[in-house]
Amino acid sequence: MKILVVNGPNLNMLGVREPAHYGTQTLPEIEAALRAQADEMGVELGFVQSNIEGELVTLIQQALGVYDGIILNAGAYTHTSIAIRDAVAAVKLPTVEVHLSNVFGREEFRHHSHLSAVCVGCICGFGADSYKLALIGLADKLK
Amino acid sequence: MKILVVNGPNLNMLGVREPAHYGTQTLPEIEAALRAQADEMGVELGFVQSNIEGELVTLIQQALGVYDGIILNAGAYTHTSIAIRDAVAAVKLPTVEVHLSNVFGREEFRHHSHLSAVCVGCICGFGADSYKLALIGLADKLK
Amino acid sequence: MKILVVNGPNLNMLGVREPAHYGTQTLPEIEAALRAQADEMGVELGFVQSNIEGELVTLIQQALGVYDGIILNAGAYTHTSIAIRDAVAAVKLPTVEVHLSNVFGREEFRHHSHLSAVCVGCICGFGADSYKLALIGLADKLK
Amino acid sequence: MKILVVNGPNLNMLGVREPAHYGTQTLPEIEAALRAQADEMGVELGFVQSNIEGELVTLIQQALGVYDGIILNAGAYTHTSIAIRDAVAAVKLPTVEVHLSNVFGREEFRHHSHLSAVCVGCICGFGADSYKLALIGLADKLK
Amino acid sequence: MKILVVNGPNLNMLGVREPAHYGTQTLPEIEAALRAQADEMGVELGFVQSNIEGELVTLIQQALGVYDGIILNAGAYTHTSIAIRDAVAAVKLPTVEVHLSNVFGREEFRHHSHLSAVCVGCICGFGADSYKLALIGLADKLK
Amino acid sequence: MKILVVNGPNLNMLGVREPAHYGTQTLPEIEAALRAQADEMGVELGFVQSNIEGELVTLIQQALGVYDGIILNAGAYTHTSIAIRDAVAAVKLPTVEVHLSNVFGREEFRHHSHLSAVCVGCICGFGADSYKLALIGLADKLK
Amino acid sequence: MKILVVNGPNLNMLGVREPAHYGTQTLPEIEAALRAQADEMGVELGFVQSNIEGELVTLIQQALGVYDGIILNAGAYTHTSIAIRDAVAAVKLPTVEVHLSNVFGREEFRHHSHLSAVCVGCICGFGADSYKLALIGLADKLK
Amino acid sequence: MKILVVNGPNLNMLGVREPAHYGTQTLPEIEAALRAQADEMGVELGFVQSNIEGELVTLIQQALGVYDGIILNAGAYTHTSIAIRDAVAAVKLPTVEVHLSNVFGREEFRHHSHLSAVCVGCICGFGADSYKLALIGLADKLK
Amino acid sequence: MKILVVNGPNLNMLGVREPAHYGTQTLPEIEAALRAQADEMGVELGFVQSNIEGELVTLIQQALGVYDGIILNAGAYTHTSIAIRDAVAAVKLPTVEVHLSNVFGREEFRHHSHLSAVCVGCICGFGADSYKLALIGLADKLK
Amino acid sequence: MKILVVNGPNLNMLGVREPAHYGTQTLPEIEAALRAQADEMGVELGFVQSNIEGELVTLIQQALGVYDGIILNAGAYTHTSIAIRDAVAAVKLPTVEVHLSNVFGREEFRHHSHLSAVCVGCICGFGADSYKLALIGLADKLK
Amino acid sequence: MKILVVNGPNLNMLGVREPAHYGTQTLPEIEAALRAQADEMGVELGFVQSNIEGELVTLIQQALGVYDGIILNAGAYTHTSIAIRDAVAAVKLPTVEVHLSNVFGREEFRHHSHLSAVCVGCICGFGADSYKLALIGLADKLK
Amino acid sequence: MKILVVNGPNLNMLGVREPAHYGTQTLPEIEAALRAQADEMGVELGFVQSNIEGELVTLIQQALGVYDGIILNAGAYTHTSIAIRDAVAAVKLPTVEVHLSNVFGREEFRHHSHLSAVCVGCICGFGADSYKLALIGLADKLK
Repeated sequence: MKILVVNGPNLNMLGVREPAHYGTQTLPEIEAALRAQADEMGVELGFVQSNIEGELVTLIQQALGVYDGIILNAGAYTHTSIAIRDAVAAVKLPTVEVHLSNVFGREEFRHHSHLSAVCVGCICGFGADSYKLALIGLADKLK
Repeated sequence: MKILVVNGPNLNMLGVREPAHYGTQTLPEIEAALRAQADEMGVELGFVQSNIEGELVTLIQQALGVYDGIILNAGAYTHTSIAIRDAVAAVKLPTVEVHLSNVFGREEFRHHSHLSAVCVGCICGFGADSYKLALIGLADKLK
Repeated sequence: MKILVVNGPNLNMLGVREPAHYGTQTLPEIEAALRAQADEMGVELGFVQSNIEGELVTLIQQALGVYDGIILNAGAYTHTSIAIRDAVAAVKLPTVEVHLSNVFGREEFRHHSHLSAVCVGCICGFGADSYKLALIGLADKLK
Repeated sequence: MKILVVNGPNLNMLGVREPAHYGTQTLPEIEAALRAQADEMGVELGFVQSNIEGELVTLIQQALGVYDGIILNAGAYTHTSIAIRDAVAAVKLPTVEVHLSNVFGREEFRHHSHLSAVCVGCICGFGADSYKLALIGLADKLK
Repeated sequence: MKILVVNGPNLNMLGVREPAHYGTQTLPEIEAALRAQADEMGVELGFVQSNIEGELVTLIQQALGVYDGIILNAGAYTHTSIAIRDAVAAVKLPTVEVHLSNVFGREEFRHHSHLSAVCVGCICGFGADSYKLALIGLADKLK
Repeated sequence: MKILVVNGPNLNMLGVREPAHYGTQTLPEIEAALRAQADEMGVELGFVQSNIEGELVTLIQQALGVYDGIILNAGAYTHTSIAIRDAVAAVKLPTVEVHLSNVFGREEFRHHSHLSAVCVGCICGFGADSYKLALIGLADKLK
Repeated sequence: MKILVVNGPNLNMLGVREPAHYGTQTLPEIEAALRAQADEMGVELGFVQSNIEGELVTLIQQALGVYDGIILNAGAYTHTSIAIRDAVAAVKLPTVEVHLSNVFGREEFRHHSHLSAVCVGCICGFGADSYKLALIGLADKLK
Repeated sequence: MKILVVNGPNLNMLGVREPAHYGTQTLPEIEAALRAQADEMGVELGFVQSNIEGELVTLIQQALGVYDGIILNAGAYTHTSIAIRDAVAAVKLPTVEVHLSNVFGREEFRHHSHLSAVCVGCICGFGADSYKLALIGLADKLK
Repeated sequence: MKILVVNGPNLNMLGVREPAHYGTQTLPEIEAALRAQADEMGVELGFVQSNIEGELVTLIQQALGVYDGIILNAGAYTHTSIAIRDAVAAVKLPTVEVHLSNVFGREEFRHHSHLSAVCVGCICGFGADSYKLALIGLADKLK
Repeated sequence: MKILVVNGPNLNMLGVREPAHYGTQTLPEIEAALRAQADEMGVELGFVQSNIEGELVTLIQQALGVYDGIILNAGAYTHTSIAIRDAVAAVKLPTVEVHLSNVFGREEFRHHSHLSAVCVGCICGFGADSYKLALIGLADKLK
Repeated sequence: MKILVVNGPNLNMLGVREPAHYGTQTLPEIEAALRAQADEMGVELGFVQSNIEGELVTLIQQALGVYDGIILNAGAYTHTSIAIRDAVAAVKLPTVEVHLSNVFGREEFRHHSHLSAVCVGCICGFGADSYKLALIGLADKLK
Repeated sequence: MKILVVNGPNLNMLGVREPAHYGTQTLPEIEAALRAQADEMGVELGFVQSNIEGELVTLIQQALGVYDGIILNAGAYTHTSIAIRDAVAAVKLPTVEVHLSNVFGREEFRHHSHLSAVCVGCICGFGADSYKLALIGLADKLK
C-alpha cells in the first residue's frame, strides 16, 4: 500500500509560523514521525510540499497509477482552490483532507473547504497527530 | 483516563438508516468495538445516546468531574443546537466532534457546525472508524 | 392499512392558541373526527403528540414495522428540526406534511420547511380538514 | 357551487413531460376524473389551461361573479408571477394552490411561491390526486 | 405632441381590485379624465392595456415613430419583467414610470423596479393623479 | 393651505454640483419658481434647507400645527436616516418624497429610501419640475 | 400577583459556566435573592429550569390560568426555538425576556431572538440583577 | 435533420435596438444568412419569433416530433422564465442557448440564465455569428 | 454618584408621537419622575436631549470626568450611528442602552443596534419605566 | 492570422478525468484536430497548457505582439482568478472563453466566471467542438 | 497651494480614546506637526474638526474656491455618510481619505467606505503619519 | 534598515496595461525612482516581481531574517489569496499594502483585501507615488 502526503503553502514554515495555531514541530519532523508510523504499518509513503497551487495540482495528478490514496493538507488553498478540487476528482484516488488546527473554529473564511466534497473524510485540530490519524483511517479504508 | 462518548438523534437507528451514508453497523456494535479498543489503550469509556437535545445537554454537564474528555457525535443537532455548544463550553472538557459520514460533502445545511468552535478537533467520513480515530487522537491530547 | 399521526409542539393547545390561525377545535376533537373517517376508510390510526423534538424523533422511529405511513404536523419544529427530517428519512415510510394554517402565507421564518424534501406531499391551510385530506391522499398513495 | 380549475404552462404536456415528476396521466384524463368527482359532489366545474401568464391573469379575473372558488396550478409561474398573485388578490375568491409534484422538495428555485400568501391553502405531491383533494378541501371551505 | 399611456396586468380591474390600495375609479374613468386634461394641454393621447407581458412589449415597440413619449404603468410586471425594460430601452422614447399606490411603501417584493433604470422619471402614490402629474411632467420634458 | 418644502444636504450646492444629475438651476431659483406657482394656486409656502440631519428632524417637527403637508427632498439622508423617517411619522402630516434625479436609476445604494414607507407618494427624475408636480399632487390630496 | 420565572438550558450550570459572561452566583442563589425581593413586593413566584426545549414549552403552557406573567430566560433556545415563541404567543401572558449577559454584544448568532417579537420587553446585561429588574418592570406592567 | 430556431422578446427590433450591443443586422437578415448556411449543410430550418413568454413555451412544445434540435435565443426571458426552462425539459430535444451579446459581461441581472441547466451548450457574444456557430455545433451533436 | 441620561432624535416629541409605540408621557414628565427616583436613591442626574447625531457625540464626550455612568436612548441613531458608538467606547463610562418600545419586536431595521456591543446592558419595552429600571440597574453596577 | 489557445489546470488530464463531463479525447488529440482545422482556414495556431495560474498569466502576456487573438479555456481558474482576468484586459487581444462542458448547468460555484467581462464571447458545452467553434467565431471577428 | 484637513467625529478625543487603535497624540499635536511640515513644503493649511455630519458637509462645500485639495478623515461617518460623499463629489476638489488605524483590519462594519469611490487615494494605518503621507501625496498630485 | 518590495501579477505589464488606471511608468522605472529615494533615506531595498501566487508566498517567506519590513503590491491576488495572507502572518514582518490605483473606488470585487487584516497600513491611489509614500511611512514605523 502506497500513500502520498501532499502539503500546501506555508507548511514549510511550520515551527516558525504562528505556533499557537500550528505547534512547534517542523514539517521534516512531522514527516519523520509519520514515516516511522507508516513503516510500522507496512505503508510506503510519499511526502511532498509546494507553495504553488498549480504544482499541487500536478503532484496530485502524478499520483495516479503510483499511489493508492492521498493525505491532503492544502493549507490556505483549501478555501480558494477549485483547481485542486478538480485534480482530486480527476485522479479518483481516496483522499483524506487534514488540517493541523481546527479550521472550523477560526476565521469565517477558513470555514469553507472546496475540497471536502471530493474527499472521503476530514481530520482537523490534532496538530501533527492529524496526519497520523489520517494515515490510520485511510489505510483502514484502503483495505 | 476516562472518556465519554455522546451520541445524538437517530444514531440509535444505525444499520437501519440510509446505509449508503452511515454504514451497516449498529450502534451497539460500534460501542463494543470501541470498548475493545479503549480497553487495549487503558481508557475507561462511557457511552450514551439520546434523541433529545436537552438530554444531551444534561449528559455533557454530568461529565464534569467524572470524565477527562468527550467524543461527541451530535447528529443533526450539530447544525442547529447552540444549547449543546454552550454545554460543551460550560464544562470545558476537551471535546472531539465526530461524524460517520463526510458531512461537509453532503447537503448545504449540513456544512455548518455550531459545535466546531468549542471543540478541539473534528473527524468525519470514516464511518465507525471515526470514533476509533477520535479515541486515539483525544487520548494523545489528554496525555 | 395503519397510519400514524404525529403532532408537534403547542398542538395540545389547539382551541386555546391563536384561534384566528388555528381554529377553535381542540386536538382531541380533531383526533375523534379523524378516527371516525379512518374507520370509514378501513384505516387503523395511531395518534400521538409531544412538545419535545427528540420524542417526536423517537415516535417516528418506532413507527417502523408498525405503520404503513405517517401524517406529520411537526408544528414549529417544521422550520428548525433537521433531527425530525433525519428520522423520517431513516424510517423511509411515506410521510405527508400537514399544517392547519397556510404557513407559506405567514411570517418569513415559517416559509421554510426542513421536512418537505423527505415527505411525499404537503397539505396546509385547511384547518382540521388538512388531516382529513392527508388521510385520503396518503391512503390512495399506499394502495 | 361552481369551482374553476386553472392550469398554467406546460401542464398541457402532462403524460409526455418528465413522468418521474409529473406522472403518466394526461391533462384531459385528469380533467375527466375530476369532473366525475365534482358531479358526485354536486359541484359545477370549469377547467382551463394556458401557457401565457397574462391569459391566466384574465381567466382568473373572469371567474369573478361566475365561480365561487378557484383551484390554481400555475406551474412555473408559481415561482415568478406577481401578476397572477395580484389577479387572485383582486377577485378575492377563495383559491387553493395545487402542484402535482412536491415542489418544496425539488430545486431551490421551486421552493418559493408568489401565490401562497394570497391563497387559502396549498396541496402538493399527490399527482392528479392533488386536484381531487383540493376539490374536497375547497368545497368544505365554501360550505 | 403624442403620448402613449401603457397599462399592465390587472389595471383593467381598477375599481374592483383592493380599493384601499388602488382607489375606486375604473380605468375607463381614469382614461376619460386624462384625455380631458390632454386635450387642454394640446397633447394627443394613446391609451392601451394588456394583461400579457409580451403584448406590452409589442405595444411599446409599436410606439416608435408614432409617439413622442410613454407613460408606463406596468403593474406587477414592473418587478419581474426585463423584457419590458428592454423594449423601453430599444425604442428610446422618454418614458415615465407611474404607479397608483406608493409601491415603495408596500411589500418588499414591490420595492424593486426593473424599469426605473431606463425611465426618465417615476411618480407613485397619487392614485389616478399619478397619470395626470406624469402627463404634465413628460410634456414639460418633451418641450 | 400651507405647505412646507424641506431640503436636505448639498441641495444648497445646486447649479454647482454635478449638473448632469441635478441641472443648472440654483436652489433660490427653484424656490422662486415654486413660490410663483404656489401663489397661483393660493398655497402658502415654507421653504427651508439644512445640511444637518438633526436640524431636518427639528424642521419637520416644527411643521406640526403650522403646515398642512410637507414636500421633502432629504437628499443623501433619504438612504441613511431613520431619524427623519421617525420625524415624518411623528408629525403625521401628508408628505411627498421628491428627488431631482431618477435615484432608482443610479448607484445601488441610492435605490433604497427609508422615507418612502411613511410618505404618501414619491416623484423623481423631473429636475426642478419634481417640486412643481409634488406641489400640484399634494395640494390635490389635501383638498 | 403570581409570576413564573422560566430558565432554559445550561442555566443550572451558573457559577460553574464561563463566569466572565455569567457571573459566579448559582441559580439557587439567584432564586433565593429573587424570592426575597418578590416577598417584599407581595408577588408570588414560580421558579423552574429545564435543559429540554419541549419541557420549557410545556412549563409555559401550564402557566396559563395559574400565573399573571412570565419572566423568561430561554438561554440558547432564545436564538433557535420557534416552539417556545409559539408557546408564549399561545398563552398570551405578558412575558419579559431576560439575559444575564449582554447577548447583543456577543457572537453574531446570539444577536437574533425568536422570542422578542412576542415578549413585552427585554432586559439583558445585568447578571442576576436582570431578573430583579424584570420583576419590578413586569409587576409595574401588571398593575 | 431539422432544427428550430426560437427567438424571444425584442429580437424583432434588431437593427433598431441598441446597435452597440446587438449589431445592425435585422432579424430577417439573420434568418436569411442562417438559411443559406443551413441549406449548405443540408439542414432544414424552422425560424420563429415571439414577444410572449407563453407563446415561446408553445412553440417549443410544438417542436416535439417535428424537429431534431432547437437553437434558443430567449432574450430577456433567459433571465426570468422558468416556464421556458420547463418546456425545454419537457420536449427533451437537444437545445443550444445563444445570445448576440456577451450577456455575462453586461449588467448583473443578465448573468443568470434559467435555461443553461437544461441546454446542451451555450454560445454568446458573436452577434449574428452566434446563430451560425450554434447551427454547426448542434448539427455535429445531432450526428 | 452622578448619571447622565442622553436622549436622541424625536424623543422631544413624546406624548405626541405614535402613542401606541411610545406612550402618552412627555419627555419632561419622564425627566421629573426619574429625578424623583434618583433623589430617593441619592443619585445626581443629568438629563439632555438632541436631535443631532453629532451633538449627542459631544454630550457623551463631555460626560467624561463629570459623570459615573450613562443611560442612553439614542432613538433612531441606535440603528445607524457608528459615531455615537465610538463616543461611548471613547469615554469608557458604563452605559446602559434603553428603549421605550420593544424595538426587537418591531420593523426589521430596528432589530440591529450599533450601540449594544459597547454598552453594559440593554432595557427595552417598559415605556418610561425603561429609564427607571436602567437607573436601578446602573446604580447597582456602579456600586 | 495567428491565434493562441491557452489551456488551464487539469486539461492535461482529458481522456482520464471524469469522461462524463469532459469526453474521452485527450488534449493532444484536440490540439491535432484543431490544428488541422486551422490549417484549412489559413490560421496559425499556438497551443499551450499549464496547471499554474501565474504561468497562464505570463503566457497571455507573451501573446502581445505575437498573436491576433486568444482562445482561453482557463479551467477551474475561470471561477477564481482575477489575475488571469487582468492579464486578458492588459493585452487587449480579442479573447474567446471556452469550456468543454456546459459549466452554467453544473455546480453553483462554476456558474460565475471572472473572465467573461473581459472576453468578447463565450462557447461552452460542445466538448472538443467548443474549440472548433471558437476558432471559427474568433477568425470571423478578427477579419 | 492650499489644502484643507477635515476631521470627523471623536477625533477631538485623540489621546484619550482607545490609544491602542489611535495612539497617544492629541489632535492639536497632530495639527501642529502637520503645520510644521506644510510650512516646510510651502503649503498653506486649513485644519477643522466637527462631530456633526452636516457641518462636515458644509466645511467641505466651503472649501470650494478657497482650497486646492482636501485631506479627509471622516471618522465613523466614513462608513455611514452618503451626504459627505456627495459633498466631496459636488466640490470636485482632489480629496485623500485618511485613517489613523488600519480600518480594513478591524470590525467588519469598518471595512466599507462610502467615500473611497469619490476620493483620489486612501492612506490608513500610520497613526498621525497618515496625515503627513497624505500631505506629501496630495501635494505631488496637485503639482 | 532593509525593506523588500514585493510585486504581484501583471505589474510587469505596467506602462502597457490600462494606463488610465495604472499610469505610463514601467516597473523598472518605478524601481529606479524608488531606489533613488531609498538611497537618500539610507534604506537598502529588495525589489521582486512574480506572476505566480506561490512564488510570492516563497519570496515573502525568504524575507524572514533578511529584511526588516515589506512593501506589498499583490495585484489581483490581493482579492483572492489567503496563502499570501498566511505568509505575511507567518513571517511577522511589518508589511504595508500598496496599490497604484484607488482599488476601493473600482469594481466591487476589488473592494475586499485578504491582506489588510495582517498588514500595518495601506496606501492606494497615488500611482508610483504609492510606493514612495509607503517607503516613508514604513521607515518611520521601523524606527
